[in-house]
Amino acid sequence: MIKIVLNGCSGKMGKIITECATNFKGVEIVGGIDRFSGQHSYPVYATPQDLDIDYDVLLDFSRADALSGLLELTEKTNKPLVICSTGFSDEQLALIDTKSKTLPLFRSANMSLGINLINSLLRKVTPLLYGNYDIEIIEKHHNQKVDAPSGTAILLADTIKDSIKDETKYVYGREGSSKREENEIGIHAVRGGSIVGDHDVIFAGTGEVIELTHKAISREVFAIGALKACEYMATVTNPGLYNMDNVIGIEK
Amino acid sequence: MIKIVLNGCSGKMGKIITECATNFKGVEIVGGIDRFSGQHSYPVYATPQDLDIDYDVLLDFSRADALSGLLELTEKTNKPLVICSTGFSDEQLALIDTKSKTLPLFRSANMSLGINLINSLLRKVTPLLYGNYDIEIIEKHHNQKVDAPSGTAILLADTIKDSIKDETKYVYGREGSSKREENEIGIHAVRGGSIVGDHDVIFAGTGEVIELTHKAISREVFAIGALKACEYMATVTNPGLYNMDNVIGIEK
Amino acid sequence: MIKIVLNGCSGKMGKIITECATNFKGVEIVGGIDRFSGQHSYPVYATPQDLDIDYDVLLDFSRADALSGLLELTEKTNKPLVICSTGFSDEQLALIDTKSKTLPLFRSANMSLGINLINSLLRKVTPLLYGNYDIEIIEKHHNQKVDAPSGTAILLADTIKDSIKDETKYVYGREGSSKREENEIGIHAVRGGSIVGDHDVIFAGTGEVIELTHKAISREVFAIGALKACEYMATVTNPGLYNMDNVIGIEK
Amino acid sequence: MIKIVLNGCSGKMGKIITECATNFKGVEIVGGIDRFSGQHSYPVYATPQDLDIDYDVLLDFSRADALSGLLELTEKTNKPLVICSTGFSDEQLALIDTKSKTLPLFRSANMSLGINLINSLLRKVTPLLYGNYDIEIIEKHHNQKVDAPSGTAILLADTIKDSIKDETKYVYGREGSSKREENEIGIHAVRGGSIVGDHDVIFAGTGEVIELTHKAISREVFAIGALKACEYMATVTNPGLYNMDNVIGIEK
Repeated sequence: MIKIVLNGCSGKMGKIITECATNFKGVEIVGGIDRFSGQHSYPVYATPQDLDIDYDVLLDFSRADALSGLLELTEKTNKPLVICSTGFSDEQLALIDTKSKTLPLFRSANMSLGINLINSLLRKVTPLLYGNYDIEIIEKHHNQKVDAPSGTAILLADTIKDSIKDETKYVYGREGSSKREENEIGIHAVRGGSIVGDHDVIFAGTGEVIELTHKAISREVFAIGALKACEYMATVTNPGLYNMDNVIGIEK
Repeated sequence: MIKIVLNGCSGKMGKIITECATNFKGVEIVGGIDRFSGQHSYPVYATPQDLDIDYDVLLDFSRADALSGLLELTEKTNKPLVICSTGFSDEQLALIDTKSKTLPLFRSANMSLGINLINSLLRKVTPLLYGNYDIEIIEKHHNQKVDAPSGTAILLADTIKDSIKDETKYVYGREGSSKREENEIGIHAVRGGSIVGDHDVIFAGTGEVIELTHKAISREVFAIGALKACEYMATVTNPGLYNMDNVIGIEK
Repeated sequence: MIKIVLNGCSGKMGKIITECATNFKGVEIVGGIDRFSGQHSYPVYATPQDLDIDYDVLLDFSRADALSGLLELTEKTNKPLVICSTGFSDEQLALIDTKSKTLPLFRSANMSLGINLINSLLRKVTPLLYGNYDIEIIEKHHNQKVDAPSGTAILLADTIKDSIKDETKYVYGREGSSKREENEIGIHAVRGGSIVGDHDVIFAGTGEVIELTHKAISREVFAIGALKACEYMATVTNPGLYNMDNVIGIEK
Repeated sequence: MIKIVLNGCSGKMGKIITECATNFKGVEIVGGIDRFSGQHSYPVYATPQDLDIDYDVLLDFSRADALSGLLELTEKTNKPLVICSTGFSDEQLALIDTKSKTLPLFRSANMSLGINLINSLLRKVTPLLYGNYDIEIIEKHHNQKVDAPSGTAILLADTIKDSIKDETKYVYGREGSSKREENEIGIHAVRGGSIVGDHDVIFAGTGEVIELTHKAISREVFAIGALKACEYMATVTNPGLYNMDNVIGIEK
């Protein structure tokens, strides 16, 4: 049984992770860290420094500014730290990078296994298809989403771009009269209702279309990804900066 | 058996209509009109004025500039004229309108039954859904298509717009940071490979999404629509300007 | 402000309706009925007979066996009763029918506006398309769903069947060697993961495919449908048996 | 310029390949083999034994019974043979296998690059996802297709099956009352209209769905795959049995 301490246990994702963990074989949340104690079946500590119990993996799904306290605790225990928070500054990202020379760290900007798997596949298939197949991405999200296209759509497009030698050009919609150029990647942001989050990568060739599609149904998917990452990191003994590619098991 | 004379019989669509007509019960092409005689099982006349056989319906799938000759013939025979050509000037459209006071004329900008059916449905469902459901259109076409969005996507959007009292705003893609406004209609033009033509109208509400989708598989669909229009017009006795709504049988 | 009393307020759907009602303009839940009092912002009564407050609409989203108590209360108050429970026996359905001669009653087996709208559209389009278009239904649900195909898929198929003169035949999958017959309706039940509920009605013709699709994102959609039904029934003054077609405003 | 001789040049696929080859850079059809001479820009020979011109690759898109004559010619020239015909008996398959010890042979049951690519991806992703994701396949074809499910759907399902240790069970539709078992692979055959051929492999997990989708638009896609295979085989110098995985460049 992998003993997890959950930082941000009383937040929205913290609650979902707590619930998912009860059905996830082989892991147990033995303690939480949060300013708000909340109602939990495990003891909750106000800060990482207050923690006085043993654990296998420290899981963080909170906010970027929790980073330094968590790294401090990790240096003391030398136990893996799984970072699922987002919004880090360049300095913070550099710090994670530096600390990963001596500590077993994990970080990912999107904890869904599916998106990370599709991202891995894009690295493989894009070089094979580009030139004969036109690449377009459609993403759909709820009408309250402020940024367009989604961070995940950009992640996927960047992966495509990085696996092509050509200078690609992102096109965020089309109006008027002009033919598609080969090196365009169309990125279309649909907004409506309460759509949780769909991403569709289209490779359109002569006589056929190939699509890699991901549909998020609920936030649970990120909780499960986080627990999978904990499961993986519990097996890690070397320092390093790990990510969902390691968890998935597809080599880069 | 409905006897059809086909104007534009040696063009791309003319050939497809000729082939479809052999399997379409109840109709027969008894003559063609085309500058190029081509290889046909029926006699071909160079101009409408050369025609010297009897017919029930005159079907035109050629070019806008054939209009005056066809109207002249129709005035002589008083038989229904089915106009499937596109690209008419405002003067030509006005002429069709005027002539329809005394002649049985049919005109449609898109001969697919499916698209016309969806267009009819939009007139009904938009007033029921608008306000609680966000409306977005995705269209997909091959990479040689020059105009974006497609004429059909605009047709559908205009139908939606006309059935709403609010001032709607077409949005042809999204990039940057700003929330969707209620009266936006997102229209997304995907271009790639040899996609024949897909149109997807999305009504995204709280907790659910409704979609009306049309996928063109081949140009045959326009031939069948044209033959259906002939079949319908053969039953028409009154002058007037008819369209695919009449053929489909859904009242406006 | 429409005053609603909610029967089954402490159940899963009761909680979702309670939450939705706080954001739904023009309605207010003024009381609940449930054996379990739960934690609510309104008073909860153990049985319909205990209720001692004034209301405009009585909303029931509980179980079939609550029916008689609710009808009894409705006879006393003569206020509209919206029945969203399912699983009624033939006797109970007959009782609802009889009581609707003197009371304003509403009943629907599926409270999603979208599904009911699509069901309405099927009544219109099936007679126009059948014969030239093959009709197939794909439904997708989570892997814990026991019955296949879904009740909603059967509802849609029955609507299609009832609008066709031919004797249609439901086909629940295909294996082996035999050609599709014209009067088949293929109904395909996909089961996997935590899919909330998708229904796709396909009309496949020569050269084109038309699809009417519904995707449920969350149970909220049923709560909103229930509140819409309350809103509608609050305007009803005559006895009768109303359903979602009335709410949607599409005539049969 | 790769010089191709095309066996079956006057058949349906032969004509499509001939047309595609005119736009395909770097290849040229220098001769055809067919009982029917047809109208071609290249000389046509009645049998492989009549061929008296030089070539780089022999491409076969005809019928299984042409095999022995083609192998005989290949033994004489020692030039690569690309076999796209289907319906071989076990004896014929064994013969191809044996001859590939000394001759450069290529064989594939589906010449679409896209399907073969998806098939390759399934080998990679299935072991990562199985157990946590339910796998279902939906295929759609025209209403004249006699066999169900499609050979390609079975190919994909077999690839999935072979990459899992569990004993999987194919389920060809669902009706009645019973829960999905983990080791089921649902295979759903939709039949309608003139659909060319769609295949959708669904991995449905908790909170997310991943889909790998292929849509055939026209038979051209098989012609292009065949020409790509010729292009690849022209570079091959060693005997062996090659297939589309080699062409695609994804290792097994």
